[in-house]
Amino acid sequence: MIWKEGMSLIANTPQPPYYAVLFTSVRTNGEDVEYERTAQHMAELAVDQPGYLGIESARGADGLGITLSYWESEASIRRWQQHVEHLQAQADGRAKWYERYQLRVCRVERAVAFEVAE
Amino acid sequence: MIWKEGMSLIANTPQPPYYAVLFTSVRTNGEDVEYERTAQHMAELAVDQPGYLGIESARGADGLGITLSYWESEASIRRWQQHVEHLQAQADGRAKWYERYQLRVCRVERAVAFEVAE
Repeated sequence: MIWKEGMSLIANTPQPPYYAVLFTSVRTNGEDVEYERTAQHMAELAVDQPGYLGIESARGADGLGITLSYWESEASIRRWQQHVEHLQAQADGRAKWYERYQLRVCRVERAVAFEVAE
Repeated sequence: MIWKEGMSLIANTPQPPYYAVLFTSVRTNGEDVEYERTAQHMAELAVDQPGYLGIESARGADGLGITLSYWESEASIRRWQQHVEHLQAQADGRAKWYERYQLRVCRVERAVAFEVAE
């Protein structure tokens, strides 16, 4: 995922409770251009959805990727999962881009933030 | 984190409900040896804790790291957070290794797995 200036790496989420989608994936070997373009477009589209709170994403050298997205409610997650462009991306993901994945939906109950004092 | 043979990249978690700790971090610039050793030791120690279900971890080229650990209950998470060696690692993390982090505890309510057919 390509991060634009102004996107913070750690999502600035509100006080719990809120919801999170945990998407852990292993990519297939293959062309990355279409995948990267779609991942970028989905991240941009997600920002505009009702109930969106933020996103965090990392893919390690070993190929494991983790994307966490945060939402106000389960209803906002279900709505995003049914978005027509997102449905197409999910189908492409299963057909071409992912060797395997695990998607977990959860309710965030408590949170602690830490930042080094300037 | 160094993955040993036999560790799977995606955690093989049971049917929900269960709990997850979402640890998202940005590292300080600095010596990595002690950090890597401690991270590895914590991952090995976690496996032996009551209620431990699995771990997933990725750090991207942009420096954002995400570690997800899975647990049977909130009680097992609280116990692990109070483990004496883990408390020391947390203190070292704040003093030396992390620029900032966000730790979220949540209840996994539903999960979907996908794997390419052989």
